[in-house]
Amino acid sequence: MSRFGYAPGPMSAQQLHGTADRFADDPAFAVHEGGKLVVRPTRAIETVADLALTYTPGVARVSSAIAAEPALADRFTWAPRVVAVVSDGTAVLGLGDIGPAAALPVMEGKACLFSEFAGLSSVPVVLSTTDVDAIVETVVAIAPSFGGINLEDISAPRCFEIEDRLRERLDIPVMHDDQHGTAIVVLAALRNAARVVGRELADLRVVVSGAGAAGVACTKILLEAGVGGLAVADSRGVLHTGREDLTPVKRWLAENTNRSGYAGTMVGALEGADVYLGLSGGSVPESAIAAMADDCIVFSLANPIPEVDPEMAARHAAVVATGRSGEPNQINNVLAFPGVFRGAIDAGATGITEEMKLAAATAIADVVGDEVRADYVVPSPLDRRVAEAVAAAVADRAREQGVTR
Amino acid sequence: MSRFGYAPGPMSAQQLHGTADRFADDPAFAVHEGGKLVVRPTRAIETVADLALTYTPGVARVSSAIAAEPALADRFTWAPRVVAVVSDGTAVLGLGDIGPAAALPVMEGKACLFSEFAGLSSVPVVLSTTDVDAIVETVVAIAPSFGGINLEDISAPRCFEIEDRLRERLDIPVMHDDQHGTAIVVLAALRNAARVVGRELADLRVVVSGAGAAGVACTKILLEAGVGGLAVADSRGVLHTGREDLTPVKRWLAENTNRSGYAGTMVGALEGADVYLGLSGGSVPESAIAAMADDCIVFSLANPIPEVDPEMAARHAAVVATGRSGEPNQINNVLAFPGVFRGAIDAGATGITEEMKLAAATAIADVVGDEVRADYVVPSPLDRRVAEAVAAAVADRAREQGVTR
Repeated sequence: MSRFGYAPGPMSAQQLHGTADRFADDPAFAVHEGGKLVVRPTRAIETVADLALTYTPGVARVSSAIAAEPALADRFTWAPRVVAVVSDGTAVLGLGDIGPAAALPVMEGKACLFSEFAGLSSVPVVLSTTDVDAIVETVVAIAPSFGGINLEDISAPRCFEIEDRLRERLDIPVMHDDQHGTAIVVLAALRNAARVVGRELADLRVVVSGAGAAGVACTKILLEAGVGGLAVADSRGVLHTGREDLTPVKRWLAENTNRSGYAGTMVGALEGADVYLGLSGGSVPESAIAAMADDCIVFSLANPIPEVDPEMAARHAAVVATGRSGEPNQINNVLAFPGVFRGAIDAGATGITEEMKLAAATAIADVVGDEVRADYVVPSPLDRRVAEAVAAAVADRAREQGVTR
Repeated sequence: MSRFGYAPGPMSAQQLHGTADRFADDPAFAVHEGGKLVVRPTRAIETVADLALTYTPGVARVSSAIAAEPALADRFTWAPRVVAVVSDGTAVLGLGDIGPAAALPVMEGKACLFSEFAGLSSVPVVLSTTDVDAIVETVVAIAPSFGGINLEDISAPRCFEIEDRLRERLDIPVMHDDQHGTAIVVLAALRNAARVVGRELADLRVVVSGAGAAGVACTKILLEAGVGGLAVADSRGVLHTGREDLTPVKRWLAENTNRSGYAGTMVGALEGADVYLGLSGGSVPESAIAAMADDCIVFSLANPIPEVDPEMAARHAAVVATGRSGEPNQINNVLAFPGVFRGAIDAGATGITEEMKLAAATAIADVVGDEVRADYVVPSPLDRRVAEAVAAAVADRAREQGVTR
């Protein structure tokens, strides 16, 4: 490092804000001082020989070799092991459209987790545009710099088109984590919750509240996993084919769920249901949870305030999970995305298939294994075994499917 | 770090190439194994509390604060201290248009040097497009992720338009290093070479061989520094206003140099000239160097093979410099770009002005100071004092000019 490196922030609170620092009382701000990431060389540059190998003239021999044989880039550049965390800042956490600069701490956090849990380098890329075409072209343009693209906090329904088009254009893994990371962890949790109550997925009737990014992806993965009955509700009630107000994605959901054609409210659909999956915010009355089936399962993932208060839910449900930090059964995407990308990259996968996501969910559930209980249906987000298990399962499935370079 | 971090490359030579590794004999390849960069968190994530501050829910408070007061991004994100090294791979070293993947080792090397010499993080961004409009729109789109844009190895004349348009569109420092990094170091070297031979810049007659990226920028900075006479030659001879084959940039050069209207060859122009500045490749006959003025100065920067053999040049010239590694008077951009960006970033500069570049050149020359001699007109590329001195001079000039946020 330079003798005058930033360590860790260039400007003290005093320089910026005088003697009184209004952020001094919140440790979250201390953690963010100067940013949360740093790029370092893997080898020091101390001698003329180091410089001549890392940079000119030595680097020219490496560049020439790659120009002649492009596959050598896998071995002699960092790109294959770098995940870009790309966001336009339009749907950041529960905060909504706060723009690229304000989204950046979230993307830096995600990049930290890629490093900590999967040993991958990761670079936040926040965008000054929210135009779908411009986002697609930008990511395609910068893609040779990276080994994977994690799309993050992009609002629905734009996120569906952006992901679809990038998956088609690029031959590296692309995944919108708000969709698929959530879906993978929800499926893992539901597998284990079903074991706790002694049920099969095929016998469960699930009500999904929310038809945004997470709701769509969760519904799809639960269908693929063989869940028996599914109904999806948006703010206007349960999706059914008779509704005239559906976007293309919601129409697909209406056509592939709700086989009975139920046309009422989400609360009405909960009567006798086995699983509530909350991905919408808002709140659900206790009477609706009380009307669910015996031994029901409540996953209430709005953050920081769940749709269903967990203490209330516990009076009626056999298994309760939330997205809240530090509580049992935390449905946290960090259980999925580091291992999914690491596995895909390890296998040289050209994309992330549905089968790879299903394998990831099973791997997460299996880390819990026979220790499964009502308050332990998913591992702790800090459980270091998870990313390794997920990576191995995802890489194996990619190789079995032959979706590798 | 994860228990299964990459350390440093994921695949051994044996895995990739069997027992015989054809790259084993060249240490440049060993240095590049697995890539030369890594992104790390600045603080470990070991406890539930760490996770809740670095990521959700704590990060939401930081994002909310930035959304309300955008200037806080300077303090609580990493972006202001990250330089993107952007290339389309069209003019890489002396190798030409080798594409983004093969250009990546050079950009990684540059990023290493930003870290080592200026304590800045730096991210290589290599592009799948060579279209000028697409490059401009891509860099504008990703700009909120970075505190500076170092354009690199983009072919002329496209590089001029790309840099001009990005400087206009962005309020962060943007610099095409092949132009201005080279120009700054050349000016620094010429200032000290003039001292060695007891001359003023205003009295020198300089012949610039090459009207590409470096030739244009060197000519401009030498004009600004007050060099007395300048002639610029491309492969067809000296630029003069009577030529019909000039691009807009070359026409500007013809109109602002060569006041005598000399219409001959580069070799002809060297007769009686004080300085030869080679930025073109090719070779210059000894008779042409012998015909220069007494106590002449030869900077022959083509790499790895200078236009003028330095031993031959030494028979005729008082000062000789090349771009070659490990030799005296190495004209190496690493003397300029780390300090220029660090100074601009430290001052919160909204761009890099001509005056900031001139200040950088003076600062580099001043590190040599009174130790100046014929074989020591620029500091060693490893001299850690240089980037600090350049950064201070550039930041001071930016503040004096008021080109700061």
